[in-house]
Amino acid sequence: MKRPARPPAGSTAGPHHLPPSGARKIGRPSKQRRAPYDIESVTNAAVRVFNRHGYEAASMEDVARETGITKSSLYYHVSGKEELLARALERAFKSLLGVLDEPGARSGTPLERLRHIVYRSVIITLEFVQEVELLQRVKGNTPTERQAMARRRRFDREVAALVRQAAAAGQIDAHVDAALLTRLIFGMGNSITQWYRHEGRLKPEQIAETMTRLVFEGIVRAAQG
Amino acid sequence: MKRPARPPAGSTAGPHHLPPSGARKIGRPSKQRRAPYDIESVTNAAVRVFNRHGYEAASMEDVARETGITKSSLYYHVSGKEELLARALERAFKSLLGVLDEPGARSGTPLERLRHIVYRSVIITLEFVQEVELLQRVKGNTPTERQAMARRRRFDREVAALVRQAAAAGQIDAHVDAALLTRLIFGMGNSITQWYRHEGRLKPEQIAETMTRLVFEGIVRAAQG
Repeated sequence: MKRPARPPAGSTAGPHHLPPSGARKIGRPSKQRRAPYDIESVTNAAVRVFNRHGYEAASMEDVARETGITKSSLYYHVSGKEELLARALERAFKSLLGVLDEPGARSGTPLERLRHIVYRSVIITLEFVQEVELLQRVKGNTPTERQAMARRRRFDREVAALVRQAAAAGQIDAHVDAALLTRLIFGMGNSITQWYRHEGRLKPEQIAETMTRLVFEGIVRAAQG
Repeated sequence: MKRPARPPAGSTAGPHHLPPSGARKIGRPSKQRRAPYDIESVTNAAVRVFNRHGYEAASMEDVARETGITKSSLYYHVSGKEELLARALERAFKSLLGVLDEPGARSGTPLERLRHIVYRSVIITLEFVQEVELLQRVKGNTPTERQAMARRRRFDREVAALVRQAAAAGQIDAHVDAALLTRLIFGMGNSITQWYRHEGRLKPEQIAETMTRLVFEGIVRAAQG
């Protein structure tokens, strides 16, 4: 799945993904890096700034500096911080909630559908690693944050319902607490944002495969002592 | 395992655990709540403040207000924010690293030792939920933060070594990436701090048991489709 919302890889708007920490210089970028910019690259900059300083502490001034444009130019593009947060979170949700509508999530046994959702959620998390990191820090202080939390809960509820179906079908332990299991599984998936780097040695498919096997089969193999 | 460092339950120093969000009044606590206080209740207050505002954004003024004493009284007890952070993180590490020295972590097969460590780490995480939450937010900007990150890495390295031993013994999949598996497992454990409440319906033992089964046996049961 590509991310059409982002500027093309050859764009001069700078790297879209996490820069190596400490590598980013504070201050006004060179003129060459400043233009062109658009709403998507402004959103990219906002995501970096919000994750670095926290949404509440971050200012439009910080976003302007990160983007390399003046604050008044920034307000020409967006109404304010809240809109930038909404745009950033929309990226994550569009894809995450989209997983629930994929064919693999709609057909097959509850267990097969669950496996598809877990695997694909990890892939999406790694594709939108900064947006998902931001989503986790949302505290519910603004309407946008509360909407995000409600959407997140809807995702969790749909998955928990599938866990219950799998339990009813005898595919997973019937005594398990579906809500707890769902939280543990997606808590593990979310935690990857804390250490994952696009340029790292681990590929998204390897991480998704390892986590999916862990969740469904566990780590114990035949010859256990 | 008790937490001897904390004031007794009947202390007037206020609740030690996360208050229901929104329930805490901003402002100066009543005189009755102000005394007595000691270094441990000051540390409790600091942990709450650091988690609420972020360590960097939080001030000694905020900690003083939360504790209900003046800033100058606060400096009589501690040298500053960094010391409070160090004291808070020390609580988490003393117990987390202590798990590695427990009999169950020192004897038995690699798999048995691993199982003990996973289970006990969840119990400790839930006991020190606020301190572990704080630990996860540490960014490495100060010597105390860097020391905490180094200690956390040492814990991860020791567990990863045990995962490798279990793989060598044929107890777990030999092809698994031990460092990745360790990160996923403890990422899941850490994520519990984001939703766990001491007064909630889920008991620590139930959460620890569910997570341990998930990690070792996975969720799939015999009758899978």
